[in-house]
Amino acid sequence: MIVIGERLNGMFKDVGKAIVEQDKSVIHDLAKRQLEAGASVLDLNVGPTAEDAVAAMKWLVETTREVTDCPLAIDSTKSDVIQAGVGIAGETSMINSSPGDEESLNRLMPIAAEHNCDIVALTIDKAGIPRDANGRMEIAMRIVEAAMMNGVDLTHVYIDPVIIPCNVPDAGHHPVEVLETIRMVKMISDPPPKTTLGLSNVSQGTSERHLINRIYLVMCAAAGLDSAIMDPLDTELMDAMITAELLMNQSVYCDDFLRAHRK
Amino acid sequence: MIVIGERLNGMFKDVGKAIVEQDKSVIHDLAKRQLEAGASVLDLNVGPTAEDAVAAMKWLVETTREVTDCPLAIDSTKSDVIQAGVGIAGETSMINSSPGDEESLNRLMPIAAEHNCDIVALTIDKAGIPRDANGRMEIAMRIVEAAMMNGVDLTHVYIDPVIIPCNVPDAGHHPVEVLETIRMVKMISDPPPKTTLGLSNVSQGTSERHLINRIYLVMCAAAGLDSAIMDPLDTELMDAMITAELLMNQSVYCDDFLRAHRK
Repeated sequence: MIVIGERLNGMFKDVGKAIVEQDKSVIHDLAKRQLEAGASVLDLNVGPTAEDAVAAMKWLVETTREVTDCPLAIDSTKSDVIQAGVGIAGETSMINSSPGDEESLNRLMPIAAEHNCDIVALTIDKAGIPRDANGRMEIAMRIVEAAMMNGVDLTHVYIDPVIIPCNVPDAGHHPVEVLETIRMVKMISDPPPKTTLGLSNVSQGTSERHLINRIYLVMCAAAGLDSAIMDPLDTELMDAMITAELLMNQSVYCDDFLRAHRK
Repeated sequence: MIVIGERLNGMFKDVGKAIVEQDKSVIHDLAKRQLEAGASVLDLNVGPTAEDAVAAMKWLVETTREVTDCPLAIDSTKSDVIQAGVGIAGETSMINSSPGDEESLNRLMPIAAEHNCDIVALTIDKAGIPRDANGRMEIAMRIVEAAMMNGVDLTHVYIDPVIIPCNVPDAGHHPVEVLETIRMVKMISDPPPKTTLGLSNVSQGTSERHLINRIYLVMCAAAGLDSAIMDPLDTELMDAMITAELLMNQSVYCDDFLRAHRK
């Protein structure tokens, strides 16, 4: 599982404050700790408080680059912020994310092609989040088509089937439909697009966030999820993921398998 | 998920001693605690120490019946012990288990038919445990055929795909093959046979038994497992199961969903 560390996000109070005050130490510390804990990509999101989001993203990328060469996921709903971030993050970066409507895909796929970087595309369009796996797959096929039209190799495409919180009334079927979508995406092509998920959303507003996050991550791993945007500093979440990978035969058992994975 | 409580087994020191000394209080206590914790069936196994296994099983069934009318799984490799246990446990009992070879099935399916009880049948035969899901399905089909020949309704049949410990060399593929078997059994017929699993075996001899048990249970739940023979007194295991059921849309979220399930 490719772990995309979610903590460098201005929605978190410490990071939001660090961005406004240009306090590099908070960013350096969170970058290093997430990588040590098992993240291999770091998500960067300046959050809602930055006055000049483009300048804030540039500062965030440059500050993070002072401590690591790892891939960076440039996370924004604004294409100028994405363009600016990807432009300085280099080839090992990721666009996070494009909605799955034609207009958005036509705006963001060319940026992915130009920078030869990965792109996360969501199975959501102007009509909203589809009710079931088939609806999500219709949008996934549109994403694949847009990638091919723009010369983006499918191995660079991460499809995110969009999970909504499990406490939303009349939405209890979504977790199962997302699992089914993860399985179905693997059948689109050979090699197929990758899959990812903004995991924490499943537990938004619930009383058992950590428990729900880790149980759902294990279910997604069993369905073949390639990657998740998640908190690598949540030790129990990482233990669950490492154990799920062991049971999926992606690693070999030794008595120290939890520690071995982290080294 | 139908939880079959595994603790009334003579392999556990406290229970083995209680059976030899005919100490009813230990049995009563473990029966009640497992049911309170969420078991709906209790597995009874006299273990290897009892001199007269038939007499010991009769005592164990009668002692358990003093505190509960719940279904009892009569767990033995000996058909005379099973016959004796099922004979006094009543119609809401379960035979645990028959191997999947013709000879064993021909001996045990008639007992299930005679008593109109459930039967667990293992996808193992004289050649051993198959390497993959297809091999397990061949035996599953033999089990289904034997049930039909003997007039045992398929809703009474629990197919156990047999998991082996994840630390056995060159056996790392088995957990994935068992998940695939759980999915495939559901396609045999409509309604299909049920599935169950002797869960604890997956972690036998490992350094992280509880963690591995609960992660694998969640993966099996996501694949559609109907039932597991497991320890309901392991609170974290039960929390994982309850949360997996929530995410499989088998229950509705409320802030107290863990406690609500237990009531």
